[in-house]
Amino acid sequence: MHEFELIRQAFRRKAPFIHPSTRLSNGDDASVHTLPAACDLVVSSDMSMAGVHWPHDFPLADAACRAVNAALSDLAAMGAEACWLWCCAAVADAQSAEQMGAGIAMALADRDIELAGGDTVHAEINSLSVTVAGMLPKGKAMRRDAACVGDDVWLCGHAGLAAYALQQWQQGNRSQEGIRAFREITPQLDAGIQLREIGVCCCIDVSDGLLADAGHVAAASVVGIEIAVEKVPGFFALCAFLSRNEALELLLSGGEDYALLFTASENLREHLTALATRIGRCTPGSGVKATLDGKNINMIRRGYDHFS
Amino acid sequence: MHEFELIRQAFRRKAPFIHPSTRLSNGDDASVHTLPAACDLVVSSDMSMAGVHWPHDFPLADAACRAVNAALSDLAAMGAEACWLWCCAAVADAQSAEQMGAGIAMALADRDIELAGGDTVHAEINSLSVTVAGMLPKGKAMRRDAACVGDDVWLCGHAGLAAYALQQWQQGNRSQEGIRAFREITPQLDAGIQLREIGVCCCIDVSDGLLADAGHVAAASVVGIEIAVEKVPGFFALCAFLSRNEALELLLSGGEDYALLFTASENLREHLTALATRIGRCTPGSGVKATLDGKNINMIRRGYDHFS
Repeated sequence: MHEFELIRQAFRRKAPFIHPSTRLSNGDDASVHTLPAACDLVVSSDMSMAGVHWPHDFPLADAACRAVNAALSDLAAMGAEACWLWCCAAVADAQSAEQMGAGIAMALADRDIELAGGDTVHAEINSLSVTVAGMLPKGKAMRRDAACVGDDVWLCGHAGLAAYALQQWQQGNRSQEGIRAFREITPQLDAGIQLREIGVCCCIDVSDGLLADAGHVAAASVVGIEIAVEKVPGFFALCAFLSRNEALELLLSGGEDYALLFTASENLREHLTALATRIGRCTPGSGVKATLDGKNINMIRRGYDHFS
Repeated sequence: MHEFELIRQAFRRKAPFIHPSTRLSNGDDASVHTLPAACDLVVSSDMSMAGVHWPHDFPLADAACRAVNAALSDLAAMGAEACWLWCCAAVADAQSAEQMGAGIAMALADRDIELAGGDTVHAEINSLSVTVAGMLPKGKAMRRDAACVGDDVWLCGHAGLAAYALQQWQQGNRSQEGIRAFREITPQLDAGIQLREIGVCCCIDVSDGLLADAGHVAAASVVGIEIAVEKVPGFFALCAFLSRNEALELLLSGGEDYALLFTASENLREHLTALATRIGRCTPGSGVKATLDGKNINMIRRGYDHFS
């Protein structure tokens, strides 16, 4: 089959939505878009690869859907409305292209997000590089460097459950229920927009692990962060299946649930309790401290590191 | 070495330029940009891989530089000013990351283009997915579907020389002069902007091969295209080293010189002769016809197809 035909069939036809801000879509040298004058452009680029971001034997359509959702989570963390994506797919064969196309379409179904372009290359290992773009009111992006001493720390979503589900898969559990938390991640796009509208200024998505990502906020904002582990959604669910230490390990270091971690001053509490769970606070100093029932926890691993 | 440190060292530090339209750059979940109200956003995403887009033994920094320039060529074809790029690098080891970072920096040197974000993954085969974005006055993008019957067909740049240089490398020629046309491609960004300002509406960059890309214009614009091969810059240079048939093959089917192919009505001729070479015309009908001294040429291969 010819490259152009293959790309067209596997990707374009399955995701036909055109965003109203698009002047020229998929099929020219580039796509062209007109942004509303009151909006900033927000862009992020993420790469996911078989054997690194999902097991080689994991269903490829689910993996591709997950890769797109993971990329969209970065827009959620900024408080942006997601509008477009561009996918560069390295595919082992035509069947892989077909499955990746189906996964991308699954991620975009029922969302007003356009597949505006991309590229396809023949490779031994399947991978998907996803660039996502969206918009938000000028100057209103939530950032990592805007936490203040005294802020509450909140989590919208849960932690550790995706890592546990991936462990289940790796141990041979093929039940839909067992692996759902890894397979079906949801970028918190609506919640991100609501948080921004409420007045939240500091947010990050938890992709590297709760401690690692809280550490990024602490470093960028020059604050310390304390997290009360027993308050983190997911902890008691993990404790039902695992020892306390195993549960702590997954909760604090297992990334990829794509929850939103954010900070906000106390006076926003009443607006936030319906959206998220308060799990800690920002302190003077630096670094992240995790406690369980008031006692310090010492962790060694801090998030997933491809090169360690 | 830790992933974050590796990425920071290899990529960010080497390309420190921040575009004046950027509010928040590399280092947060996403980058944030404010476009001038009179401008459209133009975006393209391209993937380049060792063993597909460059030989495995080709210097990696040169290959990465080439990959960025190839992606920027898509913005040139639209007539856009290039502003930002996001790079997803799959790297075999820290040395590869270092070399790719150097190559990206080489491509951006002396250009006002920002490395605004990206991702790095450990992989067996080096590859680089590059998303580029730029801007141009609203509604003024040059497109593939705007050629008219009677238009002249022009080429800004040359054809076939990059394919010949690649052949030289594959045959063991390691001289700088022999491989320069493959290694050092130049995206025609300034020329693209000039063409748009002169009033050119229809343009494509020649990445798949002269016949294949002229075919894209012909199909999108619903015209035929005739190309007089003896007028194409590069033909006589190739004939100095190769048989006539070999020269024709590389000229018409060897892509990756990243010239701009465009069409324009006769009344623009006097403005265009300093920028480009007139190589043919748009006719009623469909498809692309190549002639040499008035005689038809029959070609079988039509550009590079990863899956054929």
